[in-house]
Amino acid sequence: MRHAVFPAGARVRPRLCLAVATACGDDQPGLSDAAAASIELLHCASLVHDDLPCFDAADTRRGLPTVHCAYGERLAVLAGDALIVLAFETLARACPAVPARLPALMSTVGRAVGAPGGIAAGQAWECETSVDLALYHRAKTGALFVAAAEAGALAAGGDPAAWRTLGARLGEAYQVADDIRDVAASALEIGKPVGRDAVLGRPNAATELGLPAAIGHFRRLVAAGIAAIPDCARRELLRELMQREADRLIPREIARLAA
Amino acid sequence: MRHAVFPAGARVRPRLCLAVATACGDDQPGLSDAAAASIELLHCASLVHDDLPCFDAADTRRGLPTVHCAYGERLAVLAGDALIVLAFETLARACPAVPARLPALMSTVGRAVGAPGGIAAGQAWECETSVDLALYHRAKTGALFVAAAEAGALAAGGDPAAWRTLGARLGEAYQVADDIRDVAASALEIGKPVGRDAVLGRPNAATELGLPAAIGHFRRLVAAGIAAIPDCARRELLRELMQREADRLIPREIARLAA
Repeated sequence: MRHAVFPAGARVRPRLCLAVATACGDDQPGLSDAAAASIELLHCASLVHDDLPCFDAADTRRGLPTVHCAYGERLAVLAGDALIVLAFETLARACPAVPARLPALMSTVGRAVGAPGGIAAGQAWECETSVDLALYHRAKTGALFVAAAEAGALAAGGDPAAWRTLGARLGEAYQVADDIRDVAASALEIGKPVGRDAVLGRPNAATELGLPAAIGHFRRLVAAGIAAIPDCARRELLRELMQREADRLIPREIARLAA
Repeated sequence: MRHAVFPAGARVRPRLCLAVATACGDDQPGLSDAAAASIELLHCASLVHDDLPCFDAADTRRGLPTVHCAYGERLAVLAGDALIVLAFETLARACPAVPARLPALMSTVGRAVGAPGGIAAGQAWECETSVDLALYHRAKTGALFVAAAEAGALAAGGDPAAWRTLGARLGEAYQVADDIRDVAASALEIGKPVGRDAVLGRPNAATELGLPAAIGHFRRLVAAGIAAIPDCARRELLRELMQREADRLIPREIARLAA
């Protein structure tokens, strides 16, 4: 379980969750921390199962052997399971002072990772012969970004609906950035094998649109997300933060290459 | 997911949960139903992953093809994941009227299925060369029985500690009954391949003690559990119910055979 969670990846989703919680006043930092942690634990769990021999059969992740390569397939299945459980335990342990916020938080996080619209459902599209691409991306990647933004608001007693569009657009942008890196970046740079989409016969926005157009698409999605940030404390600062976070997703050399 | 949950097995754990909730007054039947359902969903999830080719490689379960035999390994991994998530979503959706009961319920249920002492940890012992048998059984089987009893009490606003011993002894008894059936019952009768423990090189109480002594051990464990039932409404009725439930675990022909 530790191997699946450390060393850290970009921690994009929990950072989004905490940024939204801060914008909503973050009156229960223990609860927003737990929400952010639970979302990252669920993300890590999905990576462990995604890497399994029956799915992507990936040997490396974040520059290290994947969990099943390091510890065997059985412990990788179990580590993923236990990380899902730990995510909900983490939520349950946080802030018994405000249990009234827990049901909505759990539902929001659960919806993003289960069936019929969360990560498990998204990954299940990979088992179909004909794929609804929009549904696939929304479930496999988008849902957890939406949940990260909504959970940040919920943990701080804010209105989750107001933050939904930010999460959705950043999720789409993240997916496009992942496609761009899959096509363009060197294996060393992102720490996992590249060109996997082509090998696995998966759709890829950068292949479909070409690199420059894909980067343009990515930037428009980020801009749309940032434009959707509702009125909140230090709104300008949050916009800058979101832009900086987004800029990290595409390595400079790739952006230069495409320009 | 449906294939993993229906048709029903014995539903032993949720029945225990609901019996304890009833004994504790069951003032929130929506919540005790959700607790019982979440426990059964988690049990079903563990069976799906347990049956996978990398673990038991079981072809049949409850007289039907296992999930991975019917739908493939990838969907079996995902169905298990989504069932875990659904269990917690089910808890979250139940009774927003009493959110204060939710954190303890989630912690109790989560502890029983995750690491370091729940089902995932128990199954992980199967990957070790040297096994602590007591820890293995307690984590793999006992923990969810304890959680079923405790969750029934928690859902009804009762004291979980008072019901712990009942759950623990019934869990041990269930494990012994499973060992007995593994050795003695025909494949048809319990709907899964038998003699698996011997094939998989696993310890089995009926093999170690012999059938008559194992049945005696089973009965003493059930009696100890029933003796530990605390003062509650209709205590005698509950004792009889628990005895009847236990009697169902060992088919009559086996009991006769051993006698």
